[in-house]
Amino acid sequence: MNFQGEQHPGIAPSAPQTQGFRLNHTMLRAKDPERSLAFYSKVFGMQVLRRLDFEEMQFSLYFLANLEAGDQVPEDIQARTAWTFSQKGLLELTHNWGTEDKDEFAYHDGNAEPQGFGHICFSVPDLAAAQAWFDEHEVTFVKRADQGKMQDVIFVKDPDGYWIEVIQADLMAAMGN
Amino acid sequence: MNFQGEQHPGIAPSAPQTQGFRLNHTMLRAKDPERSLAFYSKVFGMQVLRRLDFEEMQFSLYFLANLEAGDQVPEDIQARTAWTFSQKGLLELTHNWGTEDKDEFAYHDGNAEPQGFGHICFSVPDLAAAQAWFDEHEVTFVKRADQGKMQDVIFVKDPDGYWIEVIQADLMAAMGN
Repeated sequence: MNFQGEQHPGIAPSAPQTQGFRLNHTMLRAKDPERSLAFYSKVFGMQVLRRLDFEEMQFSLYFLANLEAGDQVPEDIQARTAWTFSQKGLLELTHNWGTEDKDEFAYHDGNAEPQGFGHICFSVPDLAAAQAWFDEHEVTFVKRADQGKMQDVIFVKDPDGYWIEVIQADLMAAMGN
Repeated sequence: MNFQGEQHPGIAPSAPQTQGFRLNHTMLRAKDPERSLAFYSKVFGMQVLRRLDFEEMQFSLYFLANLEAGDQVPEDIQARTAWTFSQKGLLELTHNWGTEDKDEFAYHDGNAEPQGFGHICFSVPDLAAAQAWFDEHEVTFVKRADQGKMQDVIFVKDPDGYWIEVIQADLMAAMGN
């Protein structure tokens, strides 16, 4: 592939020892699982593949995925757990028990200071339809597709205030050219 | 799929309007792209699918993926850009120009206060081999596979201090049971 000849600072070829490495998930802490699971399932179509409760440490983990035609999710719980951890592009929400009852409690979005994490991004088949869908669900926008310097890029907020970018792949083709 | 009958707070069925939604990438800010690209390419086998430079706004974006057998990455830059934004499980690194020259500059990992983002997670075929590979590259561990309450789970740090979980899918099968 020619593009691997492009110059990037520091980049090295992929070693055979890294074969099969895949970016399985991104973990965000969520104040209120009911609120967040409603949001990610209703608005972004994600489903819970696996929930893990840790009684001793007082937290629960929810692993969410956008299931696609052809995905063979095992019903057996152990097989499903292994399947979950072999996928790409999952979202893990961590719920530390009790945070939902604390009025002032809030997580940090990473875009206000101190900065670090920026956002997660969903690719969608139809950006205009997605924007109408977000309006229908009264989702909070950071920017709409026609606002700001980056046209055809939407940013919304999840219930904890984390930023979610939304793009349509073919509309991004000319980006940076 | 029976497991969708499991009860989770707030969860709703996936609406047809969300069909084709996919978690494309997670964005983290990186202080020094040379350092981070060397790390993610050498240690985690990622390659740069697309680099976007924004002269006016003084930043660059790097979209990284673990390429797999069967991935047909287009050589044409516009086709490749569209392909990049249709994938799952990518990492986007944002470099705000000049941060690498500021000695005291550091990004926030989300695990120290104020908390929010937790980690990204790679699934690997062989956890023991991965741990040896990280040692070979003098990667900083948060915890090794045999440390702490979560056995068979590794956490390392990337060059900015972001946490990276590393798991082997079949070793996770009994988790939570």
